[in-house]
Amino acid sequence: MWFASDNSGPAHPAVLDALVRANDGYSAGYGAEPAMARVTERIREQFEAPQAAVFLLGTGTAANALALACLCPPWAGVFCHRHAHVEEDECGAIGFYTGGASLVLVPGSDGRMEPGALAAAIARKGGAVHQIQRGAVSLTQATEAGAVHSLDHLRALADVARTHGLPVHMDGARFSNALVALDCAPAEMTWRAGVDVLSFGGAKNGMLGVEAVVFFDPARAWEFQLRRKRAGHLVSKHRYLSAQFEAYLADDLWRDMARTANARAARLAAGIAALPGGRLNHPTEANEVFAAFPRAAHRRALAAGAQYYLWSFDDPAGQTLDGPDAGPVSARLVCNWATTEAEVDGFLGVLRAEKITQRA
Amino acid sequence: MWFASDNSGPAHPAVLDALVRANDGYSAGYGAEPAMARVTERIREQFEAPQAAVFLLGTGTAANALALACLCPPWAGVFCHRHAHVEEDECGAIGFYTGGASLVLVPGSDGRMEPGALAAAIARKGGAVHQIQRGAVSLTQATEAGAVHSLDHLRALADVARTHGLPVHMDGARFSNALVALDCAPAEMTWRAGVDVLSFGGAKNGMLGVEAVVFFDPARAWEFQLRRKRAGHLVSKHRYLSAQFEAYLADDLWRDMARTANARAARLAAGIAALPGGRLNHPTEANEVFAAFPRAAHRRALAAGAQYYLWSFDDPAGQTLDGPDAGPVSARLVCNWATTEAEVDGFLGVLRAEKITQRA
Amino acid sequence: MWFASDNSGPAHPAVLDALVRANDGYSAGYGAEPAMARVTERIREQFEAPQAAVFLLGTGTAANALALACLCPPWAGVFCHRHAHVEEDECGAIGFYTGGASLVLVPGSDGRMEPGALAAAIARKGGAVHQIQRGAVSLTQATEAGAVHSLDHLRALADVARTHGLPVHMDGARFSNALVALDCAPAEMTWRAGVDVLSFGGAKNGMLGVEAVVFFDPARAWEFQLRRKRAGHLVSKHRYLSAQFEAYLADDLWRDMARTANARAARLAAGIAALPGGRLNHPTEANEVFAAFPRAAHRRALAAGAQYYLWSFDDPAGQTLDGPDAGPVSARLVCNWATTEAEVDGFLGVLRAEKITQRA
Amino acid sequence: MWFASDNSGPAHPAVLDALVRANDGYSAGYGAEPAMARVTERIREQFEAPQAAVFLLGTGTAANALALACLCPPWAGVFCHRHAHVEEDECGAIGFYTGGASLVLVPGSDGRMEPGALAAAIARKGGAVHQIQRGAVSLTQATEAGAVHSLDHLRALADVARTHGLPVHMDGARFSNALVALDCAPAEMTWRAGVDVLSFGGAKNGMLGVEAVVFFDPARAWEFQLRRKRAGHLVSKHRYLSAQFEAYLADDLWRDMARTANARAARLAAGIAALPGGRLNHPTEANEVFAAFPRAAHRRALAAGAQYYLWSFDDPAGQTLDGPDAGPVSARLVCNWATTEAEVDGFLGVLRAEKITQRA
Repeated sequence: MWFASDNSGPAHPAVLDALVRANDGYSAGYGAEPAMARVTERIREQFEAPQAAVFLLGTGTAANALALACLCPPWAGVFCHRHAHVEEDECGAIGFYTGGASLVLVPGSDGRMEPGALAAAIARKGGAVHQIQRGAVSLTQATEAGAVHSLDHLRALADVARTHGLPVHMDGARFSNALVALDCAPAEMTWRAGVDVLSFGGAKNGMLGVEAVVFFDPARAWEFQLRRKRAGHLVSKHRYLSAQFEAYLADDLWRDMARTANARAARLAAGIAALPGGRLNHPTEANEVFAAFPRAAHRRALAAGAQYYLWSFDDPAGQTLDGPDAGPVSARLVCNWATTEAEVDGFLGVLRAEKITQRA
Repeated sequence: MWFASDNSGPAHPAVLDALVRANDGYSAGYGAEPAMARVTERIREQFEAPQAAVFLLGTGTAANALALACLCPPWAGVFCHRHAHVEEDECGAIGFYTGGASLVLVPGSDGRMEPGALAAAIARKGGAVHQIQRGAVSLTQATEAGAVHSLDHLRALADVARTHGLPVHMDGARFSNALVALDCAPAEMTWRAGVDVLSFGGAKNGMLGVEAVVFFDPARAWEFQLRRKRAGHLVSKHRYLSAQFEAYLADDLWRDMARTANARAARLAAGIAALPGGRLNHPTEANEVFAAFPRAAHRRALAAGAQYYLWSFDDPAGQTLDGPDAGPVSARLVCNWATTEAEVDGFLGVLRAEKITQRA
Repeated sequence: MWFASDNSGPAHPAVLDALVRANDGYSAGYGAEPAMARVTERIREQFEAPQAAVFLLGTGTAANALALACLCPPWAGVFCHRHAHVEEDECGAIGFYTGGASLVLVPGSDGRMEPGALAAAIARKGGAVHQIQRGAVSLTQATEAGAVHSLDHLRALADVARTHGLPVHMDGARFSNALVALDCAPAEMTWRAGVDVLSFGGAKNGMLGVEAVVFFDPARAWEFQLRRKRAGHLVSKHRYLSAQFEAYLADDLWRDMARTANARAARLAAGIAALPGGRLNHPTEANEVFAAFPRAAHRRALAAGAQYYLWSFDDPAGQTLDGPDAGPVSARLVCNWATTEAEVDGFLGVLRAEKITQRA
Repeated sequence: MWFASDNSGPAHPAVLDALVRANDGYSAGYGAEPAMARVTERIREQFEAPQAAVFLLGTGTAANALALACLCPPWAGVFCHRHAHVEEDECGAIGFYTGGASLVLVPGSDGRMEPGALAAAIARKGGAVHQIQRGAVSLTQATEAGAVHSLDHLRALADVARTHGLPVHMDGARFSNALVALDCAPAEMTWRAGVDVLSFGGAKNGMLGVEAVVFFDPARAWEFQLRRKRAGHLVSKHRYLSAQFEAYLADDLWRDMARTANARAARLAAGIAALPGGRLNHPTEANEVFAAFPRAAHRRALAAGAQYYLWSFDDPAGQTLDGPDAGPVSARLVCNWATTEAEVDGFLGVLRAEKITQRA
């Protein structure tokens, strides 16, 4: 019953096997190994983007910050949702990597910027030299609240950006989960919708630790490589990154894992919503469930060894253990490819105060 | 009828005379000239702060950014009002000088952070390594909306900061105007209220271009000097800065000029408030007037050569010239030591559509 | 015959096995997994440093830059050898991570700073505010020229640093190779000799990609963690780093691998030195051989598929393929734990123009 | 007898008068005042560069650092003389402003880079992603050693830069002194010789404190303005900067002052060279004298109240007061527009141990 994060789960055996196989013998490094060429080729195919530049590195924070540093000059702002990962969970990485650019926070429900609010935020910046200039737009797919932008919503946001000549970055830490939720082609959810650069996540979806950055226009590829190197994110034994990603993209493994994670989250969400005192705080559209349920149920879950975070973007009270049994807590529960139906059902049973015979 | 800014007006003759006298002969530079020692001594006396470290430089943006860079590490946030000068008018200077620190915006009316909102904002930051840490609190006295924090309000904000161990910076670009408004001692409005570092403005109050940074605790004085030097803000012919400041502090010139500016603003505010369709958008407590009046009156004022900005923090519509004559515009009008009663009255006459015989 | 780099070779099977085992089930991340506590404990034991703070990350460049950013303020200089990795191979990472600190280059043979030259370089910096201040000393063990500082040499350099109150960083990308070369205790080669912070390399000695940073004084541990996080070097699925390092330290694997690599390099060096026209450009004291040999031999080696770099710190001519057969080339050849005696001997045979029957 | 620096002297009365006149009444600021348009026009005429973008600010360090930040990306190096002001006297300003770019030091006598050494330094950088890339070339005219590059020398350095596609910056803190020394047109010494951006000094040549930055190609003008603003170097009451510069350029004042300063330095140099034990350490080609003379003479000069620095780029011993009377000291003596022949002759008399009747 481990729902703390999608990075708490194991890597998929096929990914691990690929890594073990990649260990054989000598190899060029720093991305010059043959597997990296194959990864680039495969991503270009999958995204129908024959010119795309593809780079691998170890964390999502680095992927986001390096990508945005290529898009947004130091004196400008990145427009993002007020609860975006770049704002709330990266300890100021964007400020560091850009040399002091700002995040300009935009409201909107369920982690999605509202297009009108984005337009208003952009309108308030730029102009005279005294002001922060307009840099880039960064959106998160799936969002930090477990929702998924529809293709129309993506296009609407990108249109606002385009109107002001701003490039669009997509934080796709949970890209695969969003993709299978929309059941669309990768190109539709990215460059055809107006996305210029994608952080294409891996660690949250069954890899050990690798993310891709995809520039659909390769013009800034060399700048990215220099930024990556001087940030210490160019890995010498790069074959272990490319091997993971090659396995990820083979046989649709990436989509299969995401589908499983999403299905488990849907099952979990339905179960909680059906509880007395249970409700969803945000729609469950990918692999994360944001839900409220009685504190008494939460205490039972903790006692049974369940792992998850109390989490509310706007309700501090819902995140505290202290309080009346009947009062609600707000929690985030995350599923991954390895989450089983039995775990979900067992957890729901604990919430319902069913007797459980063993800890998952 | 020039109300565009307090930096549109001339320097006071006494300041200019001091600068001319300082030109005589040879002098050590970089603050080693004798006049700088006198300025430091005088500021220590005026602020009852015998240990204070005092530095001069050329702009308020530099004063704020260098001071805050000494207080706030790169991975932390500066808590400030959402319309603070550091947020709206310095093109990201804080991000540049700190190496990527964030501004965390706090609401509150009339440019004053609401203490509870400050406490809530601080509570949301810090903690785990993933989050932006808590760096410093910066408040503006007088505020960007022309208001003045009471001593109680200052102490309440500083208390919130102290509770979390955060240092307090005061952006005193209009420090003198606030001081005479409160009619209190400089120490009361600064270190006794909990302020650690002050940007003590000069250019907006009758000097050519010099600001002081005052560290009430000199522990970071050497760091400040190194930061100032590598930012190119250590002036070689420093005698021209110290001469200005010495004249400023002599014979209460700084307070006299501020009193005049405030009195003119009060007269202007009263006149606009008495207009049909006139009202104040913010209280006039220092030398700035934020007011709304009919667009027709605005058009007359423009035609008569009056200089000021349409300005509203939240009402974009009030800042446009296009619109019905009876609709209101929102404006900022700033007085300085050289503003005359005749100018104020002449301008009010134009707004009232009185016939004017000559342009001020 | 792959001598291009010690990061061209495979990871050791024991390291890989540990990583595979670590994949089982769910785990806390970000270093909170139990294996990280064991790694810290083991490093403290091995280094006789019960207070040491230990952190893992993915690359040596990041280890060096993050460590030095904690030691050297932006307005100061890092004193290092003129051919140090931080100067020649990290694309300005130190400038990026420190916010603009300088590298002050110090001469000395075989990659070792000469203590008198270090003292002179330090003496030339610091003092007035106009100058770059004195920040930290960084030395490399084993050096970039394949040499190893004796304990006396280390102490002499650290003494110079101490005299000026400067902290000492050791770039130990090849720490293990140096350690077994000196056959001393880790404490002797680090904190007892005056080293404050160590970049303890892993990737070049049989791991997939993990480095440790060891602060012998934990005072700056929290700052390091914040810097690591905002640089995107805090890995979510951290168990894969700690698992590698735990295996590395178990059963003396780290020393065994280093001993093998050093022995192969010694064999290779001896063989080249015995060639007609062969000589060593630097003493072979760890696992790297810097040697010159006739261009004709180099051409045979290339034709036979051998992999290594032409490499000379000061002789560009020796790095070009074009030239007379009898003229010398200068090369760097690196051995790792997986290098076999047969590979070495086969390569020497090619250089000697012996007939070879198959490509290694 | 004040030869400490050219910034120890007073501003020229004509400059001061212009500043006083500029104080009259109200004015737009931030460079929007009419005088700035006239300054731009006048510089364009003087430099025969009708497209040039011109900006004013307060210090030479800021001028250099802001200009170079527009030319050199963070991951690259600025090639400059090993004793350039940007290296020795700006406390790392280039690293700060560029976001971590390096200075790559190039040897050459008398503060002039040797073209072959520049070419070699450039050749050693760039290429693979691991290395610092090639950013810009910065040269100083007149040099930090009091010499002046000939037009041929300038062209030779710029040719090397052009070969590698690098832009050229000229630190012209003593531009006027060099210009009158060469007796050429400003265009010849700048853009016709291959200079892209000029720091055009003022404070060292009779102004209170203002420098111009001249971009001969205006493509980066907007970027410069944003960088200047966020660095706090955009002055609000800008009229006091433009007034100074307008007076400077009127009636050839800038050249007249430089000619006087150079003539005084020539007289001083000749006098010292003629002393027993006197010699010039560098040729005196502008307004600075670098000379050695007996320590006994130095002691007499100090006793007589003369002001100058012991200064040697490579001979620390020559910079100490302690030592035998007959041993030489090395000194830097700087003349400015206000230096009189009587001061020079009086000082020479002291060195020669003539009896002096009064202190200058």
